[in-house]
Amino acid sequence: MASHPTTHAHYGQYAEEEHDVGFKLLALFLGLAVGVLAMAAVWMGISAQNARDDARAAAKAAPAATTSMPGMAMPSSAEGARPTPSFAGIAPANADALAAAHKAYPAALPATTPGPVLSVNIGISHRVLSIAPGIKYDAWTFSGGVPGPVIHARQGQTVRVTLTNNAPMPHSVDFHAARVAPDKDFVDIMPGKSFTFSFTANDPGVFMYHCGTKPVLAHIANGMYGAIVVDPANPKLLPPVHHAYVLVSGEWYLNGPGDKQPASLDMVKAHQMTPDWVTWNGYAGQYVKHPFMAHPGHTVRFYVVDAGPSLDTDFHVVGTVLQRAWLDAAVTDPPLHNIQTATVPAGGGGIFDVTISKAGLYPFVTHSFASVDMGAVGLLNVGDVSGTMSH
Amino acid sequence: MASHPTTHAHYGQYAEEEHDVGFKLLALFLGLAVGVLAMAAVWMGISAQNARDDARAAAKAAPAATTSMPGMAMPSSAEGARPTPSFAGIAPANADALAAAHKAYPAALPATTPGPVLSVNIGISHRVLSIAPGIKYDAWTFSGGVPGPVIHARQGQTVRVTLTNNAPMPHSVDFHAARVAPDKDFVDIMPGKSFTFSFTANDPGVFMYHCGTKPVLAHIANGMYGAIVVDPANPKLLPPVHHAYVLVSGEWYLNGPGDKQPASLDMVKAHQMTPDWVTWNGYAGQYVKHPFMAHPGHTVRFYVVDAGPSLDTDFHVVGTVLQRAWLDAAVTDPPLHNIQTATVPAGGGGIFDVTISKAGLYPFVTHSFASVDMGAVGLLNVGDVSGTMSH
Amino acid sequence: MASHPTTHAHYGQYAEEEHDVGFKLLALFLGLAVGVLAMAAVWMGISAQNARDDARAAAKAAPAATTSMPGMAMPSSAEGARPTPSFAGIAPANADALAAAHKAYPAALPATTPGPVLSVNIGISHRVLSIAPGIKYDAWTFSGGVPGPVIHARQGQTVRVTLTNNAPMPHSVDFHAARVAPDKDFVDIMPGKSFTFSFTANDPGVFMYHCGTKPVLAHIANGMYGAIVVDPANPKLLPPVHHAYVLVSGEWYLNGPGDKQPASLDMVKAHQMTPDWVTWNGYAGQYVKHPFMAHPGHTVRFYVVDAGPSLDTDFHVVGTVLQRAWLDAAVTDPPLHNIQTATVPAGGGGIFDVTISKAGLYPFVTHSFASVDMGAVGLLNVGDVSGTMSH
Repeated sequence: MASHPTTHAHYGQYAEEEHDVGFKLLALFLGLAVGVLAMAAVWMGISAQNARDDARAAAKAAPAATTSMPGMAMPSSAEGARPTPSFAGIAPANADALAAAHKAYPAALPATTPGPVLSVNIGISHRVLSIAPGIKYDAWTFSGGVPGPVIHARQGQTVRVTLTNNAPMPHSVDFHAARVAPDKDFVDIMPGKSFTFSFTANDPGVFMYHCGTKPVLAHIANGMYGAIVVDPANPKLLPPVHHAYVLVSGEWYLNGPGDKQPASLDMVKAHQMTPDWVTWNGYAGQYVKHPFMAHPGHTVRFYVVDAGPSLDTDFHVVGTVLQRAWLDAAVTDPPLHNIQTATVPAGGGGIFDVTISKAGLYPFVTHSFASVDMGAVGLLNVGDVSGTMSH
Repeated sequence: MASHPTTHAHYGQYAEEEHDVGFKLLALFLGLAVGVLAMAAVWMGISAQNARDDARAAAKAAPAATTSMPGMAMPSSAEGARPTPSFAGIAPANADALAAAHKAYPAALPATTPGPVLSVNIGISHRVLSIAPGIKYDAWTFSGGVPGPVIHARQGQTVRVTLTNNAPMPHSVDFHAARVAPDKDFVDIMPGKSFTFSFTANDPGVFMYHCGTKPVLAHIANGMYGAIVVDPANPKLLPPVHHAYVLVSGEWYLNGPGDKQPASLDMVKAHQMTPDWVTWNGYAGQYVKHPFMAHPGHTVRFYVVDAGPSLDTDFHVVGTVLQRAWLDAAVTDPPLHNIQTATVPAGGGGIFDVTISKAGLYPFVTHSFASVDMGAVGLLNVGDVSGTMSH
Repeated sequence: MASHPTTHAHYGQYAEEEHDVGFKLLALFLGLAVGVLAMAAVWMGISAQNARDDARAAAKAAPAATTSMPGMAMPSSAEGARPTPSFAGIAPANADALAAAHKAYPAALPATTPGPVLSVNIGISHRVLSIAPGIKYDAWTFSGGVPGPVIHARQGQTVRVTLTNNAPMPHSVDFHAARVAPDKDFVDIMPGKSFTFSFTANDPGVFMYHCGTKPVLAHIANGMYGAIVVDPANPKLLPPVHHAYVLVSGEWYLNGPGDKQPASLDMVKAHQMTPDWVTWNGYAGQYVKHPFMAHPGHTVRFYVVDAGPSLDTDFHVVGTVLQRAWLDAAVTDPPLHNIQTATVPAGGGGIFDVTISKAGLYPFVTHSFASVDMGAVGLLNVGDVSGTMSH
């Protein structure tokens, strides 16, 4: 019974500083005054850069009350009445350098583990992470990163999950690949406690996992999600490919720009489904600077999970078509063929194969382009790389 | 030719008070002053509770002009220029008690009616309904409730619909299961008038019906929608199951909190697709307090209609997978198998079977989690209940 | 090698006046003062008509800084901090007359071109277009119209695209039907320059094409999109029908009402996915005044592309069901049958056949009804017309 390798260890690098999460009592008349001045500056258009600085200052002077308190299941209407400024796509001057220096989330599908049991140990912690060049967020994490580790099981294998809650509030985990009683296995774990449960990975495909503690919207929006791939026992259902990558889509809703101090969740924006950033594997545009590699003529598989919390993904690879598309990750049914764009619902998965003969740079996106402008873009570099069968 | 049982009678209990619907001329400087004070209080975060009360007072003092006037097809830009506060998920202190006292919409699929003709009599009226614990809404209804009655036909049966308009404005009905000329059968019925038309239920599946009077957005958003199930003549297309439930997703867009006086439609929010509440069968979270029941090992079928008016549903049952999924309710084609989450488009339907062996509580949701936080959640209680074939 | 007919020529009529596109330095304190007065008037509800006029005046006095500058890949956060009023569905008093006078985009599928090569010449220009009755928009166009010309190829044909950039900023074109290296063929073309590339139309179906220059969100939102239909070599995959129409869904995000002076792109609204208008083929409700014609009993095919930039389309024809539905335009796989509503993802396509026996008016919509209220509606007039095989 081997311990699964993708746990604590190689997610540590995502943590940049510790940051207290809790209710922040807020600014006074000054905040309102600065806000009004900033809005006046924006309306007048005197200087976009000055106004941006002013708006950031205002946002920091008068941040919204956090709604992420444990036990506070519903946001107050008071929050709903305030304006919800957009911080979509702020790019600092040195964005390129910051993106290049960022260590990308490891998207290559890890190897499976032999034996009848796959042990997965996940530590839960709250950490400040970078979610875009120059932008920090006070995240809630599985194993210190967003998304949590990619888990790779084989159909029939027992997945034994041990969760240790190192965070100051209750958390839990809900595996979409598991057929278990939620009130017995997806239960809240108190701070400082551990919990173990098992399920048999009987349904092949790619599935979301996420924290199921209320309000679930806040727990997913704060980063508590990941993907589990279950290989079918019958390999004909999902033929081997040369390269396999796992992409998890996630939206970030910020209560401030996040450039000078970490942002945290804006629950009004989360309700209104107007994110500031949308990311593949937690960080805006990371695979533009750190592209996926493939050999011309080889087949590349994308295991896509849409973690939401709310928006669907319209998966598309620029410059080619999806040669095989297991919509809804239903691998026991035959795939569709040769389609341009495939919907992956929030909380759902899809498996997409492309075979590209011409060397070049092929962006992968959700074709809901507001999200691309907020970070949901990466590159597949088809070139002269050594093609090895990863799967 | 039997009269269909699911009409007036058992929807009366949803009506709580009569309420005039019409154009409301609005508040003066006072409203603006209160609004500014409320916003200032919110920004300053002096007290969430005080601010909530102030915001509610402001919303009542200066309500938006209603856009639901008959003949007023388009909202004015003036409405568009005002702020649209969010009242998403307001929970009164006694929410639990209110939810327990609420009589849940009857979701169990009713029996079919023998004979070649199914007569459906629907009275249209405007009524104040509860849409969430402690929240009232000035709704437009088929048969006094939201959704309207579940209609259960057999393929080949003639469905004879008689609509009586007891409301003070024109209304109509559009059945997605009908192949008829809209300009002849889905026509506006004047106040005090009745209209009868018939169609043959030739397409099996689950279909939406809704008011088709302009602006349709307002008529659906105000509650004029329901579901019709058409059993296939060939039972192999949709095998019998032990339990069958009908779920209609609907969004509510409120021009005020709705706690002290009933809210009505906020057309700007409806355009912006930012609801305050999203419900299964019209009332937030009603099947959490009044769960669906099933026996372990029995198969439960969900007939899901997304009434919108605008958002898609990503149907998911926590703790299991959708064993059979007739996407788009296309029952003449084979279903998909073993998927985690299935999209049901606005104005569309889906049929989903689950078979759960372990006793427990299994939430059903749209996995677009903003909507769950606004009420789109219920429970399937798999326990030691007597399992009878309902279908 | 014939020149494709659907290019410059018959789009000229859409251009109504030339208009400089660029960065506009904006109004001073006056604009803010007028804006506050307009908002006060709205809140007070003294007069909807007066307030509408005031709001329009305010929007013109203090327009938002345009974000559509070439090379300005990301909007500033300053923009995000200002309010985003809705101009959804403004209808002038003479809307009916204006809609009747508008020349509708030619939606009938054009004929294919014989021979191994289909040459497509597209000129790019910026033009003020009408997008709704009385509403003007400063658009970026392929061949002078929105959408660009419908291209109709045969599987196996070489499509040779020549793009000439007559606009004052770089543009490009990305064909979803092409398997080519984006960094080599979907490249930016400088103002005044031309570029030619070719691809083999090997994948049958209906595909989007669009400008791929950054920020792509802005280029699509400003109108740079269109559809290409590729007939399968095997006609059994897509049987001949009597009438074939091409519908491209597109959202418009306005920084002002657009009634007195042309609106241009509001990038905050584009990020927030809250359009003011949603159109079939670029102009709100144009096929209500200029319906598609069909003969009773004949089959009508809708080739639907969702250009977005961001919202999905839930395609539905009122009064009938989609008899054959090639979801995702995957014509090498069999279609679904007899469904009420089908999702077409942003950046995707779908092919839908209906056969209607009863004469009448059948509206086609996205059943996401916020969009219908903003213009996404047309009519299919099934009547005594001469039915000719168009395809």
